[in-house]
Amino acid sequence: MKQYQFIFFICLSLHLIESIHLVSTFSLRTPRKLIKLHSFARLASTDTKDIDTFFYKQTLDHFNYKPESYNTFDQRYLINFKYWGGANYSAPIFVYLGAEDAIDPSPYSVGFMIDNAPTFKALLVYIEHRYYGKSIPFGSREEAYKNASTLGYLNSAQALADYADVIIHIKKTLQAQNSPIVVIGGSYGGMLASWFRLKYPHLTIGALASSAPILSTDDIVHPNAYMDVVSRDFKEVSDTCYETILNSWSEIDRVTSETNGLSILSKKFNTCSPLNNSSELSHYLENMYVFAAQYNHPSSSPVTTICNGIDKASFGNDVLDKIYSGIVAFIGNDTCQINDPTSISETPISETDIETETRMGWGWQICSELVVRHGIGNDTMFRPSPFDLEKYISNCKEEYDVSPRSHWISTYYGGHNLKTILQRFGSNIIFSNGLQDPLSSGGILHDLSKSIVAIYTKKGSHCLDIQSSSPSDPVWLIKQRKQEVKIIKRWIAQYYTDLDALH
Amino acid sequence: MKQYQFIFFICLSLHLIESIHLVSTFSLRTPRKLIKLHSFARLASTDTKDIDTFFYKQTLDHFNYKPESYNTFDQRYLINFKYWGGANYSAPIFVYLGAEDAIDPSPYSVGFMIDNAPTFKALLVYIEHRYYGKSIPFGSREEAYKNASTLGYLNSAQALADYADVIIHIKKTLQAQNSPIVVIGGSYGGMLASWFRLKYPHLTIGALASSAPILSTDDIVHPNAYMDVVSRDFKEVSDTCYETILNSWSEIDRVTSETNGLSILSKKFNTCSPLNNSSELSHYLENMYVFAAQYNHPSSSPVTTICNGIDKASFGNDVLDKIYSGIVAFIGNDTCQINDPTSISETPISETDIETETRMGWGWQICSELVVRHGIGNDTMFRPSPFDLEKYISNCKEEYDVSPRSHWISTYYGGHNLKTILQRFGSNIIFSNGLQDPLSSGGILHDLSKSIVAIYTKKGSHCLDIQSSSPSDPVWLIKQRKQEVKIIKRWIAQYYTDLDALH
Repeated sequence: MKQYQFIFFICLSLHLIESIHLVSTFSLRTPRKLIKLHSFARLASTDTKDIDTFFYKQTLDHFNYKPESYNTFDQRYLINFKYWGGANYSAPIFVYLGAEDAIDPSPYSVGFMIDNAPTFKALLVYIEHRYYGKSIPFGSREEAYKNASTLGYLNSAQALADYADVIIHIKKTLQAQNSPIVVIGGSYGGMLASWFRLKYPHLTIGALASSAPILSTDDIVHPNAYMDVVSRDFKEVSDTCYETILNSWSEIDRVTSETNGLSILSKKFNTCSPLNNSSELSHYLENMYVFAAQYNHPSSSPVTTICNGIDKASFGNDVLDKIYSGIVAFIGNDTCQINDPTSISETPISETDIETETRMGWGWQICSELVVRHGIGNDTMFRPSPFDLEKYISNCKEEYDVSPRSHWISTYYGGHNLKTILQRFGSNIIFSNGLQDPLSSGGILHDLSKSIVAIYTKKGSHCLDIQSSSPSDPVWLIKQRKQEVKIIKRWIAQYYTDLDALH
Repeated sequence: MKQYQFIFFICLSLHLIESIHLVSTFSLRTPRKLIKLHSFARLASTDTKDIDTFFYKQTLDHFNYKPESYNTFDQRYLINFKYWGGANYSAPIFVYLGAEDAIDPSPYSVGFMIDNAPTFKALLVYIEHRYYGKSIPFGSREEAYKNASTLGYLNSAQALADYADVIIHIKKTLQAQNSPIVVIGGSYGGMLASWFRLKYPHLTIGALASSAPILSTDDIVHPNAYMDVVSRDFKEVSDTCYETILNSWSEIDRVTSETNGLSILSKKFNTCSPLNNSSELSHYLENMYVFAAQYNHPSSSPVTTICNGIDKASFGNDVLDKIYSGIVAFIGNDTCQINDPTSISETPISETDIETETRMGWGWQICSELVVRHGIGNDTMFRPSPFDLEKYISNCKEEYDVSPRSHWISTYYGGHNLKTILQRFGSNIIFSNGLQDPLSSGGILHDLSKSIVAIYTKKGSHCLDIQSSSPSDPVWLIKQRKQEVKIIKRWIAQYYTDLDALH
């Protein structure tokens, strides 16, 4: 895949955090140990014994009635009953809609749910997305990810239908017909949450869609918007840092063209193995900047960390020394970086290699329907690189033997002129964003109606609002979460009033 | 199929009218010449040269990305450009969503569109439903209807996605991005129209759903409701007619049990070939009563015609003579009836046998997702016959090798507690019904919100409002259509206001 197509739409994932692996990458071939994530997010302190695991016998294809469509797979979902007020009181149910990742870390990483469960007396449900974690069709990962014929069932419409089935099943099993459902999701999961409210209003009273870039497909926003934000984040922290990064690309080219240039670069950047070409270095750096911007958590501020490293370099005035100083400030220098031979690239999929699954699954999704256009414009700290749809398509054909349906998302879910349409249709969606998150460039940043609202923070990063609260949270983040809770309370109060009127 | 499962959800179809064949049946094995339809509806006097035919290369499976999902078929749609104000004026587009039938008769049978086209300066579009008419996947009818593997793609969700694609294509081709779309449908097509507004609000500003029994699946309305209305229609016309019909079933049994009973019945009812059992007669009669009730057009009043025949029988007091007199009054006695050996039952599907296609296609649809529950209660003019889901399912397995997903429609589209849900979600749907139409028992008869409204007439029959106006139309029908036009005008005016605000 073209490098900057491979931005993950993921909030934060615990197994990735634990194993200090890569979360946000540009490429299937990005090395393992790019980023230490442990400092990024505070995890909810939930007792694992509070989390019950269930499996639902899910239909393989909801929109077809061929015999093989009736095949089933076990879809995993987790429930935390601890805070629930119970069916007799029609106590609410918060349902987290899983995204392109295993669901087990979600009870800990989506702290917003557990933080607010006692107040709402809410049941907490976390449903795993098909083809991820343990919710694998065709009996095994190997089969499910084998080719386009088995991957064909991995798409958002099928996932939403799965969620509908599981929600109906849970309400029936718990005899909780009158309990209001609020769906919550982040990033791609946030897109799913907002779409679920639009497509299945009979199954949820409202959606909290955190950092959901629902405008990032088709031609709705400019392909350069994402990288513009990354670049802006760095510029806001430091003009000199921005300039150094901007100048570093031609300097990499200059050194590369010297005799033994790649050896010089390999040594300078302490690579794990010698660089084969300068792109390996450039991609690594681009990935790091993008990752830092998307997950620019206020308590760790990776963009500031990198820029401090660059600006305060004690290595002299060499541009590349400054860049390396930025890497060390962010990642540390206790281990080699770049070109790690233990990289997960190209390794076969096994039962334990969940990162590869996430990469492969997401790679398939962005090649089939979620055609996310990302390019680099002329006025950033990166080298310009316009989005090339033809190349994107040909890469997808090569990698997955699939032709992207690049207009399907806006055909099925809409996207153009949303304000005109949704001001008179639908209700009860919160689109939350942090403007430092480059994915906010594809987000909803203005209210679409009285009850389809945008709540954003200028300093927020990706999915920040649905993470656990912390004593060190800035005031603006506390305020954002309070607003969200207030709106959800209003939805639920309105629902109870309607329910009373019915009976 | 169990007899009373096979109620068609169809408005009026010209080829059926022309060939004086059966439109509404209970059974795949119902004889051909049941009803003369020519007296039922006034057709729009449209010049055939005003109707242009187009084909769109349609995707076989919108919700799957397997290689075979990318197969295409030619989907037919018709356009009448005569009245259109043009793209420059953002003049509206009325789109008729085809149902379980070929689309060619629709420009003539759906007169409401052409009657109102000059006032609205509307473009008229008629899109054919997949698997009907000329919109056949897999290259031929024989292949498309071969088995569950090829029929699997015939369902409502795929059909709605087809309509979305065609609408986008038409707007693009005509550079009519700003032209508002109003979708119109009747019966099953009315269900599709309302669902299209709910699922694709970005592609239509509103829907006129005529005689759409969207509550008739799952357990939302009582299975007996349909036949209750049929029975009520006859009772309202004549108590004695109702009583005669009620008494006829046991009389048929009594005569059947006599020596040569079936010969006596065959002679009495002038059957085309000797009856093999009394059910052939009973089913024929049930079909006739149901048909008369569903298509009880005010100008022809078949229920009154039948009852007049029964009540004024000159054959003496024999119950069955009276019933035969009812048949003659309605159908005539110039030809034999019942057990016609030229019946279309059991005939293979050929290119010309469009009725069989409609039966097969609809048979598949009600066996896969549109599980319509119909039974007969204790207090009707029929013999009680409760709905039997198990038998329904086993019949579907036998006939089509498919297991009905009997909850899917309410999972995907909703159906329970619609008022509670749609009073705060969605807008701009007219549900029109006539209460004499037994399918109105599954229709929306109360406003769900300010703009999701029910407009019904006490004396109306199936899809009456979307047929052509006629000088003989009763006042209540004229009023119903005026209300609908007024509401559609309001939608369009509102849309233009929103459009102005946008630019």
